[in-house]
Amino acid sequence: MKLSELAERLGCRLDGDGSLDIVRVAGVDTAGAGDITFLANPKYASSVQHTKASAIILAEDAEAAPCAMLRSPHPYRSFADVLVLFARDERPAPGVHPSCVIAPDAVLGKDVAIGPLVVIEPGARIGDRVAIHPHTVVGAGAVVGDDCVLHARVSVRGGSRLGARVIVQDGAVIGSDGFGFVTDGAGVHYKIPQQSHVVIEDDVEIGANTTIDRPAVGETRIRRGKKIDNLVMIAHGVSVGEHTILAAQVGVAGSSRIGSHVVLAGQVGVAGHIEIGDNARATAQTGIPNDIPAGALVSGYPAIDNREWLKASAVFRKLPKLQRRIAELEKRLAALKTKESTDFTDSTD
Amino acid sequence: MKLSELAERLGCRLDGDGSLDIVRVAGVDTAGAGDITFLANPKYASSVQHTKASAIILAEDAEAAPCAMLRSPHPYRSFADVLVLFARDERPAPGVHPSCVIAPDAVLGKDVAIGPLVVIEPGARIGDRVAIHPHTVVGAGAVVGDDCVLHARVSVRGGSRLGARVIVQDGAVIGSDGFGFVTDGAGVHYKIPQQSHVVIEDDVEIGANTTIDRPAVGETRIRRGKKIDNLVMIAHGVSVGEHTILAAQVGVAGSSRIGSHVVLAGQVGVAGHIEIGDNARATAQTGIPNDIPAGALVSGYPAIDNREWLKASAVFRKLPKLQRRIAELEKRLAALKTKESTDFTDSTD
Amino acid sequence: MKLSELAERLGCRLDGDGSLDIVRVAGVDTAGAGDITFLANPKYASSVQHTKASAIILAEDAEAAPCAMLRSPHPYRSFADVLVLFARDERPAPGVHPSCVIAPDAVLGKDVAIGPLVVIEPGARIGDRVAIHPHTVVGAGAVVGDDCVLHARVSVRGGSRLGARVIVQDGAVIGSDGFGFVTDGAGVHYKIPQQSHVVIEDDVEIGANTTIDRPAVGETRIRRGKKIDNLVMIAHGVSVGEHTILAAQVGVAGSSRIGSHVVLAGQVGVAGHIEIGDNARATAQTGIPNDIPAGALVSGYPAIDNREWLKASAVFRKLPKLQRRIAELEKRLAALKTKESTDFTDSTD
Repeated sequence: MKLSELAERLGCRLDGDGSLDIVRVAGVDTAGAGDITFLANPKYASSVQHTKASAIILAEDAEAAPCAMLRSPHPYRSFADVLVLFARDERPAPGVHPSCVIAPDAVLGKDVAIGPLVVIEPGARIGDRVAIHPHTVVGAGAVVGDDCVLHARVSVRGGSRLGARVIVQDGAVIGSDGFGFVTDGAGVHYKIPQQSHVVIEDDVEIGANTTIDRPAVGETRIRRGKKIDNLVMIAHGVSVGEHTILAAQVGVAGSSRIGSHVVLAGQVGVAGHIEIGDNARATAQTGIPNDIPAGALVSGYPAIDNREWLKASAVFRKLPKLQRRIAELEKRLAALKTKESTDFTDSTD
Repeated sequence: MKLSELAERLGCRLDGDGSLDIVRVAGVDTAGAGDITFLANPKYASSVQHTKASAIILAEDAEAAPCAMLRSPHPYRSFADVLVLFARDERPAPGVHPSCVIAPDAVLGKDVAIGPLVVIEPGARIGDRVAIHPHTVVGAGAVVGDDCVLHARVSVRGGSRLGARVIVQDGAVIGSDGFGFVTDGAGVHYKIPQQSHVVIEDDVEIGANTTIDRPAVGETRIRRGKKIDNLVMIAHGVSVGEHTILAAQVGVAGSSRIGSHVVLAGQVGVAGHIEIGDNARATAQTGIPNDIPAGALVSGYPAIDNREWLKASAVFRKLPKLQRRIAELEKRLAALKTKESTDFTDSTD
Repeated sequence: MKLSELAERLGCRLDGDGSLDIVRVAGVDTAGAGDITFLANPKYASSVQHTKASAIILAEDAEAAPCAMLRSPHPYRSFADVLVLFARDERPAPGVHPSCVIAPDAVLGKDVAIGPLVVIEPGARIGDRVAIHPHTVVGAGAVVGDDCVLHARVSVRGGSRLGARVIVQDGAVIGSDGFGFVTDGAGVHYKIPQQSHVVIEDDVEIGANTTIDRPAVGETRIRRGKKIDNLVMIAHGVSVGEHTILAAQVGVAGSSRIGSHVVLAGQVGVAGHIEIGDNARATAQTGIPNDIPAGALVSGYPAIDNREWLKASAVFRKLPKLQRRIAELEKRLAALKTKESTDFTDSTD
């Protein structure tokens, strides 16, 4: 694509030779002739001076680069846009691969692309333009909305409902049985059937090997626009708000309610039956045993205010020293009191 | 089902119209006409007064509800029982789907229900009434006991032995190679073959995408009645006692021995070659580097007694303040000594 | 195999009857007639005196055992070697199972063993002697080097490149989309396409249900000889050095660079865009938010020097007591000052 056309499609101001042919998007260090690159993180600004790229996307006020420049008000957004323009089509071949096992009463939308060895069980409904990669299973009565992409080896268990444009990475499980048991006096656990359903709203992305359980009654609901990374666990009956981000290996226990625009960083754990308010954030590995108010930024286990946690953590490593200082104070005070009482009985030192 | 019949089958005392037709189990907030709901957690008692359910299961001493009531000595157990009564059959169609690849010498029990594209390798034995969902692989020589349910995309690697009534959720891996290496002087790691086996005893449930490794010699053993949640890691040579509960994302390192009726909450980590006594419990995210005695309740990393941990955690956030108080004490004591020595040389202040 | 032949093949010194027939490798407690066992961990030395094994591998200076002995300069290495000698062949049958779906332009090497229902997409290249177990998917244009073993239900997404002798356990995902989004002013997230690739170098092993993401540009690279356990998450753009070990449930966030011969124990988390130097090690559950120098041993979150952390952790549980000691000091000092000022105004006690 000509750089001038690219500038126009991205809404960027062109500063350089618009007749250049751009064939690929690449990192600033590895880009070469024909590549467009970008600078979004100022941390990498120095690399720009050495780039071999033909063109670069950068902010209006960034230092000039030794190549053609596309000046953008939102360089990271323009980078995403250029990647969309150059993305290759990775959908399976149009139609349904003959090796699939599709229940006779399953309903398939228009222009689907269903790869080899996919299983679609009775009563399932697949929307228009849905792409399903090999070995994925869509369970009985499940609904997959228009324009969804299910990568390889995904389980969409019976009764699950996916909205439009949901993307599910390989190996994720939607609708596995919730972890619910009743325990008798002898400590023996009896399974509570978990046959209610999971609802995934529009524009959600679910990471590889993530698991989302269905509850016994009611629903597990992942609201619109949410992004879930790999190996995340969402237990039965959880509700997650719109545009929330759950990073890799986060775990959310049963029946908890997570607000909108929440960000939980990697390996955060959330206990059951609690509420996390809108726009709350937790740093990596935080353990959340209690409700978190809207807008809070929390860290540690049990989770406390992030600034408080940072300050306390800085003192933590000095604990042995603090302990010694306390012992020293006690010794000096004891000496003082001894001397003082000595002073009272005998004024010589 | 008539409410009177339901009362009888659940062993509950009926208080209300026994002729009501009950068609579904639902949550107290979402239940409507024809639904039965329940109250087990007193936290939700106030919702009961507004329920639209036709009937409710509740304790003998719970406040009356505005609908028919089934009074139960164990309302949570009765709730589980009613869910069993209303559970829909989710087994694959009876028999073996023609798309399966079954080794000629594999042995299948009576009344199995084996869904599409299942692979059963040479010498494997499948018990009576076993249900196997699509894309599951049962490896060479593996044994799957009577009434097991293997959900979709499960790996039962060669040589694994499952008892009766074992339930395995989607994507779980039983019998992957243990993580065993020998490292030479140059820091190069050589794989130690891990071809011994995993034993899963009767009535165990294994969560979605959980992994259980097999060892080089000996066995990994999961004893009777154990419940394992999603994304749990059990390393090679581990032994887990009866009726133990491992919540989501727990990890247990090699050769550790976990007792009976133990409960490890979400994201707990257990180091290798240690012992956890019967009835011990660990709260979420606990790290266990040493043996834990029977009956202990532990928290934190390294794990300590839970009450001790709660108290220490409460002080943790005050560390910056404590540090200031120590500095203040030092200053005051120094001032005192200075003054005091001043006093000795010059008694004026 | 005769014990004398075994001794020769392992390079061990035989002390006992070389004509014994050895048929199996077993643990010291469970070994019987015909078995060879080993002692590598001195912790288990006392068990040796009761072993029923026919032969044992042990160090030159270990106490004699009540059976034939193979004395080894490296008993753990000899144990690994004997397991290799006795390993059974677990590869699928030679050739390509007729149920596979192989793209016409995919290239297969010599002597491959490809089990049932494997999918190989257009343009993929499979090396010589590669073994692929059931339900594994090799994506478009992916390269799998000579002598690789892909266990069941593995995803090798399009464009991934695996070197020689790579082993991938069941359910692992190589090349899932990195977790990259750009967020607009309203907090709505837009996916950044992640279509660049993952490179796995020679002799890497990847655990069950582990996920390795591909980036938008550049590469995610796992260098030669690295061993990755189960349920590990490696984000997009990460680079991991040679012979590094990542234990189970470790998570590494985007663009971080991990050196060679690093060891991260179970459940460790590494933040994005940081560097971990060669030979660094982190104990279990460590959280690493900043760069770690080469050779460091770190613990805790935020990660600090392990010895410092051990000492601080020992004091942590005493925090309530320290708090009381500070309060006591304050009280005593206040009493002292009161008395002192009293002294000044009135010298009676």
